[in-house]
Amino acid sequence: MTLAPTPEDRFSFGLWTVGYQERDPFGEATRPPLDPVESVHRLAELGAWGVSYHDDDLLAVEPDRNKAIAAFRKAVDETGLVVSEATTNLFKHPVFKDGAFTSNDRDVRRYAIRKVLRNIDLAAELGAKIYVFWGGREGAETDAAKDVRDALERYKEALDFLAAYVKDQQYDMRFALEPKPNEPRGDILLPTIGHALGFISMLEHGDMVGLNPEVGHEQMAGLNFVHGVAQALWQGKLFHIDLNGQHGPKYDQDLVFGHGDVKSAFFLVDLLENGGYDGPRHFDYKPGRTEDISGVWASAAANMQAYLLLRERSRAYRADPAVQEALRASRADQIAVPTLAPGETVESLRADEFDADAAGERGYHFRALDQLAIEHLLGAR
Amino acid sequence: MTLAPTPEDRFSFGLWTVGYQERDPFGEATRPPLDPVESVHRLAELGAWGVSYHDDDLLAVEPDRNKAIAAFRKAVDETGLVVSEATTNLFKHPVFKDGAFTSNDRDVRRYAIRKVLRNIDLAAELGAKIYVFWGGREGAETDAAKDVRDALERYKEALDFLAAYVKDQQYDMRFALEPKPNEPRGDILLPTIGHALGFISMLEHGDMVGLNPEVGHEQMAGLNFVHGVAQALWQGKLFHIDLNGQHGPKYDQDLVFGHGDVKSAFFLVDLLENGGYDGPRHFDYKPGRTEDISGVWASAAANMQAYLLLRERSRAYRADPAVQEALRASRADQIAVPTLAPGETVESLRADEFDADAAGERGYHFRALDQLAIEHLLGAR
Amino acid sequence: MTLAPTPEDRFSFGLWTVGYQERDPFGEATRPPLDPVESVHRLAELGAWGVSYHDDDLLAVEPDRNKAIAAFRKAVDETGLVVSEATTNLFKHPVFKDGAFTSNDRDVRRYAIRKVLRNIDLAAELGAKIYVFWGGREGAETDAAKDVRDALERYKEALDFLAAYVKDQQYDMRFALEPKPNEPRGDILLPTIGHALGFISMLEHGDMVGLNPEVGHEQMAGLNFVHGVAQALWQGKLFHIDLNGQHGPKYDQDLVFGHGDVKSAFFLVDLLENGGYDGPRHFDYKPGRTEDISGVWASAAANMQAYLLLRERSRAYRADPAVQEALRASRADQIAVPTLAPGETVESLRADEFDADAAGERGYHFRALDQLAIEHLLGAR
Amino acid sequence: MTLAPTPEDRFSFGLWTVGYQERDPFGEATRPPLDPVESVHRLAELGAWGVSYHDDDLLAVEPDRNKAIAAFRKAVDETGLVVSEATTNLFKHPVFKDGAFTSNDRDVRRYAIRKVLRNIDLAAELGAKIYVFWGGREGAETDAAKDVRDALERYKEALDFLAAYVKDQQYDMRFALEPKPNEPRGDILLPTIGHALGFISMLEHGDMVGLNPEVGHEQMAGLNFVHGVAQALWQGKLFHIDLNGQHGPKYDQDLVFGHGDVKSAFFLVDLLENGGYDGPRHFDYKPGRTEDISGVWASAAANMQAYLLLRERSRAYRADPAVQEALRASRADQIAVPTLAPGETVESLRADEFDADAAGERGYHFRALDQLAIEHLLGAR
Repeated sequence: MTLAPTPEDRFSFGLWTVGYQERDPFGEATRPPLDPVESVHRLAELGAWGVSYHDDDLLAVEPDRNKAIAAFRKAVDETGLVVSEATTNLFKHPVFKDGAFTSNDRDVRRYAIRKVLRNIDLAAELGAKIYVFWGGREGAETDAAKDVRDALERYKEALDFLAAYVKDQQYDMRFALEPKPNEPRGDILLPTIGHALGFISMLEHGDMVGLNPEVGHEQMAGLNFVHGVAQALWQGKLFHIDLNGQHGPKYDQDLVFGHGDVKSAFFLVDLLENGGYDGPRHFDYKPGRTEDISGVWASAAANMQAYLLLRERSRAYRADPAVQEALRASRADQIAVPTLAPGETVESLRADEFDADAAGERGYHFRALDQLAIEHLLGAR
Repeated sequence: MTLAPTPEDRFSFGLWTVGYQERDPFGEATRPPLDPVESVHRLAELGAWGVSYHDDDLLAVEPDRNKAIAAFRKAVDETGLVVSEATTNLFKHPVFKDGAFTSNDRDVRRYAIRKVLRNIDLAAELGAKIYVFWGGREGAETDAAKDVRDALERYKEALDFLAAYVKDQQYDMRFALEPKPNEPRGDILLPTIGHALGFISMLEHGDMVGLNPEVGHEQMAGLNFVHGVAQALWQGKLFHIDLNGQHGPKYDQDLVFGHGDVKSAFFLVDLLENGGYDGPRHFDYKPGRTEDISGVWASAAANMQAYLLLRERSRAYRADPAVQEALRASRADQIAVPTLAPGETVESLRADEFDADAAGERGYHFRALDQLAIEHLLGAR
Repeated sequence: MTLAPTPEDRFSFGLWTVGYQERDPFGEATRPPLDPVESVHRLAELGAWGVSYHDDDLLAVEPDRNKAIAAFRKAVDETGLVVSEATTNLFKHPVFKDGAFTSNDRDVRRYAIRKVLRNIDLAAELGAKIYVFWGGREGAETDAAKDVRDALERYKEALDFLAAYVKDQQYDMRFALEPKPNEPRGDILLPTIGHALGFISMLEHGDMVGLNPEVGHEQMAGLNFVHGVAQALWQGKLFHIDLNGQHGPKYDQDLVFGHGDVKSAFFLVDLLENGGYDGPRHFDYKPGRTEDISGVWASAAANMQAYLLLRERSRAYRADPAVQEALRASRADQIAVPTLAPGETVESLRADEFDADAAGERGYHFRALDQLAIEHLLGAR
Repeated sequence: MTLAPTPEDRFSFGLWTVGYQERDPFGEATRPPLDPVESVHRLAELGAWGVSYHDDDLLAVEPDRNKAIAAFRKAVDETGLVVSEATTNLFKHPVFKDGAFTSNDRDVRRYAIRKVLRNIDLAAELGAKIYVFWGGREGAETDAAKDVRDALERYKEALDFLAAYVKDQQYDMRFALEPKPNEPRGDILLPTIGHALGFISMLEHGDMVGLNPEVGHEQMAGLNFVHGVAQALWQGKLFHIDLNGQHGPKYDQDLVFGHGDVKSAFFLVDLLENGGYDGPRHFDYKPGRTEDISGVWASAAANMQAYLLLRERSRAYRADPAVQEALRASRADQIAVPTLAPGETVESLRADEFDADAAGERGYHFRALDQLAIEHLLGAR
């Protein structure tokens, strides 16, 4: 079975994904640079709806910025792709080696803000409604190097300044922070979905700042990504999402979506489809150092195919009367019911009769429910 | 060198620490129950300032609740120990096997709130100013079992109800949430400091709710505990702290403070002593299954001794002119300087002249600074 | 689709799995003891072929050892179940708190060997051909406590003595070591498949000693279980296997097989079915604290059902011409070809002509192959 | 206190450490290439005894191989540095993207062996007695890509061929395998010390093959490095060692020795100094992307300084009568005593009288012992 992606699926890709040359700490690039224009055309042919970019991505093969932008704009116009998201490269140049907004060097911090300002203007022109901040170099390898309280204050200063600029310019744009626990720094600030949510609550312009969580980044900390995304949704802060695959705590693998923990991917698709998220399904993966250009496009298609298959599995799971019965048997339907009655008082609560020992013997039947999920995942029901 | 703890150090211990019988998933208890009265007296003799408890801890050897409370109260009065913190056991009884405030079973959720209410009254009587919530059973082993968005809504409902009660009773008490990523559940809600900070921002009574982070719990997710505590301090939410030791992502070890990652413990003490935290230094550790009762008291003393030694090392580190010079060389002093000038505009920011390539060549000298920290930790300077 | 297990599938269960009472470090048992006789009958009804036990398991409800053994024997005779494996409980009693064969206490070490000797005789009587050694208490929480070189020497001493006994008695029995990295000790000796293979190479009677690797144990160290099992097979040392589920580095979850990393479970079944392993498919899992007795049997059945479904998926994967073509495109078929020609010399090897740059451009097409595997796993081809 | 390294300390450095340009997956190089001749001179001035290299390292600034070798040889002659180890770069060029000895491409496998042969001749000329094999590209990102049993067979084939060559040439050289769990491959073959020990037991020329374990590589799997090194020593296979620092399971950090888990570093030095290891103390670290050239030399010196300080701490620990008493109290001295008496029989063993319950009550006093170790580490006794 092959499912064809359509624009309604809102699949988008970073230019830096298919265009990645696969240089790593131990090895040279295995593929030549890829022209963004070619990427746009090929992604459109494969069924993608959108494309995203870092400012520097546009310069992959054309060093003249104006020419590069014009060529990119022409390509998206011709293909009808949406520029769904933009972001700034604040990590590649040596100047950012101790961070951008939180570098110990104030001049670097100021330069970083300028680099973002310039690209926000371009992003607004290109129609990007989401602007992502991945602070990959904001961090440290030793606790001696940086007072994290001050660094967070600098982080807030930069984001509030930039948010005020966007509001002042009346751009139709929101910010999405992308957490990551480590790599390339020993410890990165805002390491998880949670830390970023806490941070946002401190911002002056927190209303326009949400999250862009990435599958692999939470899993690098051994955390449950579905739980994290659910908390972001609950807090109204899931503005964007980066889909890919990872095998637990190790270096950032950026595998094809579904090629890591596929059971978690199933529940993630189930949550995104049923949880009120209507933003892009954005793939932030790497084709892999072993792949030639044909493998690049095959892997891009695989991301979408995996999503569509998991969506089919999720729909069948939700529609299955046996699953619905199992959810009831697990009292999973009761968790939506408020614990307290309307107007409940301490006195009325205390008046309950309850036999804790008897209640402790009741089973929740979670294993049977989980097995139904597995069987749906395996297409076996 | 032996440093004697004094009440000014504000060291406190949970009754459940020295009183732990060391039953584990694979083995029986290795020590008999310990009378809380004895614990209070011995901890006082060792130099502790405070003691904390779960409601059920008081019943370790005396089943009659009133008698047990009276005996405990007498012991703290005699020794002058402060009851620094109280909490509820919402994890031991089978009734909580799917959680307390977020159990799928509404009757269980209501029972859990009642159990807390009852103990909050006692805690207020005993003078505890911090009430801790460790939701160890709030979680799941499969994403099929529980809609996390609903579960967080139930969690909020319970905490806001309890906070309103405390305010209504005019108790001098604040709440402190204790995050943990997993164990005993596969995934626990509010898995890290960050997730709890995000959650608190959603509460109606978030003003009286902060954190009780635990060394080992963050390290179980491979996260930098010092960074997390710094964020909590920055957000004004470090209400209490649980000190112990852990060796990275594995089961919860609850080692003696300093016996895990001792370099991180050094920077933690440095942050607590210089970061404006004035609450208890509370040890939440386990003596270890291999210890007899003499080992229990030796391990309790070891926690305090380790803290005091690390405090000495931190003081010498801060006072060393070579360290101060190294911090300047690393521009660590610049991170406290605002990035933007007062009244800075986009235009003035854009007017900077800056040579990114030249700036990218500057070194930060972090390794030399880190080596100074190591030499101070090792008492070698 | 429901697949019915048959004795030919060689599914077996430990008595301690369905019989686990689910006491954990934070909570009381949630189920009463289960009569081994009932377990044997229920497992047989569910389609199991074999059963295994620890010496202490037999005494779950009947304290008289002779009566307990007689009842168990009667049950296996009536049901036709095979006693496929036996092992010794060297971890539950406080006497083993610092280990059994490697306790610092020599008297304990001697007692441990006696306990095994006694149960080996029983195991031989009951026809168990595999005797498992899980040294869960052999380890330490601090490197100060034990010289690991000496401890390994003691470990070897015990195993060689016991192996000599088995040979002397002419029992038809082999030993299988079960590695685990940690829990309940901070660090356990022989932490992985690899360490156990290395250790076996040092034994006098290494010929009759192999492995009993467990899915979750390797995954607790973030290691690839399929790779580990493949190495054990390659070394001729896969004597037995423990199937279950785990979500990466955290406490030992013992989930139902397939309920953790299901993609890895797929490749594991593929390897076991095609790699020449003909031993039991033994489930070492826990039903879960949330389950009542009906959940116990449902979870037992789920293990077998998951295995059978994955075996079907593996068969279809191997039979698919598109997969066979993709394996060739990835040159996966070439890895079985010797690198050197028969009689190859250094000179002949040096005579090759080879363009490294050109060869470096060839793609391996692993993503496309992986996507085929995912599609087969999801039952989508 | 500053301790001066001397040649007797046998400190050595890889050319690739101080010469690392710090390119990472997200960023460009932050330092220019370093001339190996300069490295040799500076390392000698800092007190190093030896130097090691990959074949490609010699070509950092001089593309002509003969000239580069001549210049390097002159530098070591002038400084008196020993060429303590050599190795082959089998990971940087794209041709090795699917591995070297275990690439699916047979031509690549043959090329890899030739590249090693050529450099072994040079290493012999330069007097290197240890030849290291780090198979960083031998592995896979998906279990579909490679049959690990076949891959291990290819690995063995290559090593045995090369070992035979060394014996045939009568070079005074032994091989040392360097395990690593992952990065740059998703899963690397021979992921831990244990797996490599198991593998060596299968080699035809295993007598000349041992290990080069690296601190950070084992800690990336959450394993206890001291335990692993102890097992390697016990098996007579610790041929060489790579010292550095790491903070648990995450990307490979290659911090300065002692700057990661310093307590583990203390016990490691204690084991190396007292465990019969007399090979080089070889540092395999990275100065860090934030460092300029002055930071490179400061970090190189820091490695040696940390080792010397920890050696002093270890000596004081061993000499302290309180420690000796604590070791006896923990019965740590008993683990060296054989469990069985000379000529012990099953019958004599069974004749012991032993009260398990009473023995179960004895304490091991490990916390007090561990606290003594911490106090010695902190220079506080």
